[in-house]
Amino acid sequence: MVLSPEALLHFVQRVFETMGCPPADAALAADVLVSADLRGVDSHGVARLPGYVRLHELGRLNPTPNLKVLHETPSTAVLDGDAGLGLVVAPKAMEIAIEKAQTAGTGWVAVQNSNHFGIAGYHALLAVEKGCIGWAMTHAGPLVTPTFSKERLLGTNPVCIGIPAGEEPPFLADFATTTAAYGKLENLQRKGQPAPTGWVQDAQGNPSTDSNAVRHGGALLPLGGDREHGSHKGYGLGAAVDILSGVLSGANYGPWVPPFATAGFMSASEGVGRGTGHFLGAMRVDAFRPAAEFGLHMDQWIRRFRAAEAVDGQRVLIPGDPERESEARLRREGIPLLESVVEGLREVGAKLGVSF
Amino acid sequence: MVLSPEALLHFVQRVFETMGCPPADAALAADVLVSADLRGVDSHGVARLPGYVRLHELGRLNPTPNLKVLHETPSTAVLDGDAGLGLVVAPKAMEIAIEKAQTAGTGWVAVQNSNHFGIAGYHALLAVEKGCIGWAMTHAGPLVTPTFSKERLLGTNPVCIGIPAGEEPPFLADFATTTAAYGKLENLQRKGQPAPTGWVQDAQGNPSTDSNAVRHGGALLPLGGDREHGSHKGYGLGAAVDILSGVLSGANYGPWVPPFATAGFMSASEGVGRGTGHFLGAMRVDAFRPAAEFGLHMDQWIRRFRAAEAVDGQRVLIPGDPERESEARLRREGIPLLESVVEGLREVGAKLGVSF
Repeated sequence: MVLSPEALLHFVQRVFETMGCPPADAALAADVLVSADLRGVDSHGVARLPGYVRLHELGRLNPTPNLKVLHETPSTAVLDGDAGLGLVVAPKAMEIAIEKAQTAGTGWVAVQNSNHFGIAGYHALLAVEKGCIGWAMTHAGPLVTPTFSKERLLGTNPVCIGIPAGEEPPFLADFATTTAAYGKLENLQRKGQPAPTGWVQDAQGNPSTDSNAVRHGGALLPLGGDREHGSHKGYGLGAAVDILSGVLSGANYGPWVPPFATAGFMSASEGVGRGTGHFLGAMRVDAFRPAAEFGLHMDQWIRRFRAAEAVDGQRVLIPGDPERESEARLRREGIPLLESVVEGLREVGAKLGVSF
Repeated sequence: MVLSPEALLHFVQRVFETMGCPPADAALAADVLVSADLRGVDSHGVARLPGYVRLHELGRLNPTPNLKVLHETPSTAVLDGDAGLGLVVAPKAMEIAIEKAQTAGTGWVAVQNSNHFGIAGYHALLAVEKGCIGWAMTHAGPLVTPTFSKERLLGTNPVCIGIPAGEEPPFLADFATTTAAYGKLENLQRKGQPAPTGWVQDAQGNPSTDSNAVRHGGALLPLGGDREHGSHKGYGLGAAVDILSGVLSGANYGPWVPPFATAGFMSASEGVGRGTGHFLGAMRVDAFRPAAEFGLHMDQWIRRFRAAEAVDGQRVLIPGDPERESEARLRREGIPLLESVVEGLREVGAKLGVSF
């Protein structure tokens, strides 16, 4: 099934409105979700809508949050998301970061008491549009083991860095700190295919190529896969994301991060903080160097890398290229949805009385 | 040969003094170098001293730099290192970042016109000692290829994040954005052993296990190794380090970053900026949350991860543990130096008239 972005946006917005979100918040949340589908990151798009509905049913989601800055300095703030949708809380946190960057040069906002914020890239690009280098990080429910461990203590904890250019489109590195995102593993599960080495381990901590290993007590592996291939680096980076998002903000952290409302990964462990956390930052480019000069050099950086000699049959990409190309194509052609995703949306629509 | 840290410090300091560095700068530079040996990062320790001497002989190193802030805002600065030793310029840049964090909450300093800064961890820990989360990044001469490329366009571009705790020692993730550091490859070369998969490729861009591949036109690979194992993530992170260190600061970037003065890796390519760049940051913990409260939760984070169930025969480490344990041991036992390193130090001593 292929849907126009507009039709999908309209449906998702109506669902959030029916859950009780104010229209502007519902529109923003829908934009974040559909943007993931457009950018080819289906795992973080409308496929998650039933999860957000379930979060609401579980009483873990406040559709009309009262966001509060709990503490601030000229370049920092801690924001209480009041159990709102991360899809709405994160862009508002980034607004605060951008505002602080206007006067202080940079702005950094740690968020507590939020929920899953969708794709990190959306939030970082808000800063890029304002002439800033944008940072977006979040932790997530534990599916990943530290190097040498059997236990799942970290989420896939993505990092995103967005950097504006001059005439060229922005640089946007947006990645989970694991070898592979869980969504890619789910694709292999659906096709009954094994996982490449270095993606997962089994419940005993042995290397595994079973794409169902995580369902059976195993774990996703930090970027690098094993010690010999640098998994301590992926672990260190994912851990730093957890600490910035959780410990610095006053949210939960490590194994206590609440899982997203996905069947099979619910847990009732007691918390050590408030909800899920994020960490967002904006660094004004011209707090360092005149923006036009920076833009010229970024263009040169991008063009030099894009022109790099490629191995046979490939081309050298700039971080952000694949997602931007996907978006351009799907805006023309429409967004293809898997049958299972369509089914989930139909169910949600039927339950909330929103026609799909 | 095993030397006491004091004897090694004294010798290195005398060498830098003889090169013309003021005594305080020479002592600081020696401390950074010897700290790498103590922490078990030999590749960035006194083994590099002959390289710094050669940089000086080549006229690329100014022993009495006049550091200048070229531009600043309440939370940012750009520092001109005046072709000084990175070992001295980087700690001074971090001082500025920490000072800015005192009033603005965070401080971020992009450095241009510097040279190799030694281990990133040293600089990040300066911030940690002042109750800040410390960030230290630098780019380096090109040895690493972007995903799908045959060309070497990036350095090993390390990232370091240091985070203070309460009673526990600090968290310190400090890693090159490649699968393996070049020093580890050199160890294998010396032993005539092959490299693991995912570390290097040959000159045609094919996967290789030849530990001499980089010497023959090949390249180090970004963390992840290949696309299937997430090398686009290591590439994206290493590229961001290059842009923050180079494009934002006004230094060179990408393939134009001047190589460290190591035989075999010299190039005369024209520059696009000034010297080598770094990027340093300090985020005051209590700009977000009371420091004591943060310390309690960091301790809990660290203890929970350290207590994680380990795979057989291993233990789960906190980033920074191995380096700190090495330092404690070598402070007692002395620093073991390879014969080839001792020889290099003897030559340098003879040339500059400093007795070893």
